[in-house]
Amino acid sequence: MWYRNKLSKRLGVKYPIIQAGMAGGVTTPLLISEVSEAGALGTLGAGYLSAEETKDSIQKIKARTANPFSVNVFIPEFPEVSDIELEKAQEELFPYRQQLNLDEASLPKDNYSPYEEQLEVIMRQRVPVCSFTFGVPAKSVVTDLKKENIILIGTATTVEEAVINEERGIDVIVAQGSEAGGHRGTFSSSFDRAMVGTMSLVPQIVDEVSLPVIAAGGIMDGRGVAAALMLGAKGVQMGTAFVTCQESGAKSQHKAAVSSSKETDVVMSKSFSGKPARAIDNQFIQQMNGKARLSYPHQNFLTKGIRREAAKQNRPEWMSLWSGQSPRLSQTVHAGHLVSEIAKQVDRLLNENY
Amino acid sequence: MWYRNKLSKRLGVKYPIIQAGMAGGVTTPLLISEVSEAGALGTLGAGYLSAEETKDSIQKIKARTANPFSVNVFIPEFPEVSDIELEKAQEELFPYRQQLNLDEASLPKDNYSPYEEQLEVIMRQRVPVCSFTFGVPAKSVVTDLKKENIILIGTATTVEEAVINEERGIDVIVAQGSEAGGHRGTFSSSFDRAMVGTMSLVPQIVDEVSLPVIAAGGIMDGRGVAAALMLGAKGVQMGTAFVTCQESGAKSQHKAAVSSSKETDVVMSKSFSGKPARAIDNQFIQQMNGKARLSYPHQNFLTKGIRREAAKQNRPEWMSLWSGQSPRLSQTVHAGHLVSEIAKQVDRLLNENY
Repeated sequence: MWYRNKLSKRLGVKYPIIQAGMAGGVTTPLLISEVSEAGALGTLGAGYLSAEETKDSIQKIKARTANPFSVNVFIPEFPEVSDIELEKAQEELFPYRQQLNLDEASLPKDNYSPYEEQLEVIMRQRVPVCSFTFGVPAKSVVTDLKKENIILIGTATTVEEAVINEERGIDVIVAQGSEAGGHRGTFSSSFDRAMVGTMSLVPQIVDEVSLPVIAAGGIMDGRGVAAALMLGAKGVQMGTAFVTCQESGAKSQHKAAVSSSKETDVVMSKSFSGKPARAIDNQFIQQMNGKARLSYPHQNFLTKGIRREAAKQNRPEWMSLWSGQSPRLSQTVHAGHLVSEIAKQVDRLLNENY
Repeated sequence: MWYRNKLSKRLGVKYPIIQAGMAGGVTTPLLISEVSEAGALGTLGAGYLSAEETKDSIQKIKARTANPFSVNVFIPEFPEVSDIELEKAQEELFPYRQQLNLDEASLPKDNYSPYEEQLEVIMRQRVPVCSFTFGVPAKSVVTDLKKENIILIGTATTVEEAVINEERGIDVIVAQGSEAGGHRGTFSSSFDRAMVGTMSLVPQIVDEVSLPVIAAGGIMDGRGVAAALMLGAKGVQMGTAFVTCQESGAKSQHKAAVSSSKETDVVMSKSFSGKPARAIDNQFIQQMNGKARLSYPHQNFLTKGIRREAAKQNRPEWMSLWSGQSPRLSQTVHAGHLVSEIAKQVDRLLNENY
């Protein structure tokens, strides 16, 4: 069977299908455990969680499933920000705060990142799989995690990034095509140059590295999974497909927006976090286009409260409605049902009489 | 067999593989006939040819093969251009002309386009297949061509464009993903919104139209073809894969550039023609970025001579080196060999034991 491959065995899952570690509340323990129980790999998007929250979520996942799951962490970055830049960025966001009746947000002190503590938690909690976005972990981190038999998944948006992951000792590479929703994982190239479609990116990475490659970007159903396998991928990662699932923690407005959008409604924007990410176009993206903003992750700290409050006050025009380029293919089903239906569809497609 | 489908029968070919109708000298009668003789569909890129040149090429193709082939034409467009705009655009191009020892180029008078005469030639010469880029032909044109039993292929970069093609009576739709090299076929949307990856575009179009869909963008080998079939496409169109073939009329510098490029070397630019197109980055693209230029097709008339002379004087930094996002997968083989090797690879991939 197509799904009983080395990658599935290595990950300890039935299907080589990974639910992407979307940060920001989508990946609830309920969603993750439902996905892992269905035989795919659920992933906690821990990018914006504290170490304590990460631990708490891991324990909740473990209470719900004995199957493997993964935790995704962000490689930290600390760009300089001057007081003047901060002031200008705050000014641009003031109108939204005013209308939402929100106080000004502040940046965390002293370049704080939960990264190191999260890794401690992941090791102590014996999380089976750990994935990384926005870079590759240091060699020492790779060594420490591998000592604990944790399988490491890296993200690449170019061939060069895949090679860097391989050289660093990462086990599995997610090839993130330009169709993918949310943040670009790009870390060694300009973002524009690294907007490579899944159809182009996957086989070019497969040819250059010996690690198993997981295709991501635009994959929503069995057709996409079967296509990815043909390109040489050993598995797939899907984000947007899980956003609209019943168990997803995505806000109702986010789910509704994905469900009703077309492929041409989805754009790239740095407005929410300072880093390019794919989302459904809305007023915030349009109004903030070209306005002063901070680099990632600072801009994210400034807009976080606005987006959260916008959801509460039902102002989807100011929310970050992350989506890949295939929203027309989204379904509002149970996540476990999605996984098993996809597996059946792949079976059918691969075993047709060709 | 996967290739004996309705589309192949309809087109009268062995394999549902189309060599894209690249304008500008790549699609020589030699290349086209070689492709058609190998069982795929060769296409004359007649976009920049006069009716007389189109007729001459068609006759040369017919002398070389009795198999079906296609002619691709551009739907004409005539944007206004003021004398001041023209002067500014000429000024920006002056340094290149000076260094190449070229006289100033002029625009054709009275919005001339060879389109109507080309269609006459296509009908009189009983060309079996005609494909369109940059729009859809008028209903009357569709009726006239279909009366002559000519099969019509349209280009869509969004679901909406596919629907427009279907409503107009077109027979087959090429879904051009954002990976594709050369010009975007976009005609009903902003270009940015229509940069949809092949993995996303194909299944979303397949779900919305009842016509056969041909996948294009990033497809270079049997892996891409098999993937396209999984996505619901009935065939593929490949451009860049044929640029580097022995029979291709691409300039030697163009072939060399594709052969030695990486996926991150390929960018989108309006500099050559006024319309966004994907090419290998070079000095002309970088220097002309943001400079005054005319809309398509006017800018194309102004830069045509520069590009031709740059090839003669071996200045690839000023040539239009069209390429899709998979240059690493390019091969310098005979076009017929490429077609038969791809078909074998698809056979193998589809008939593995899944």
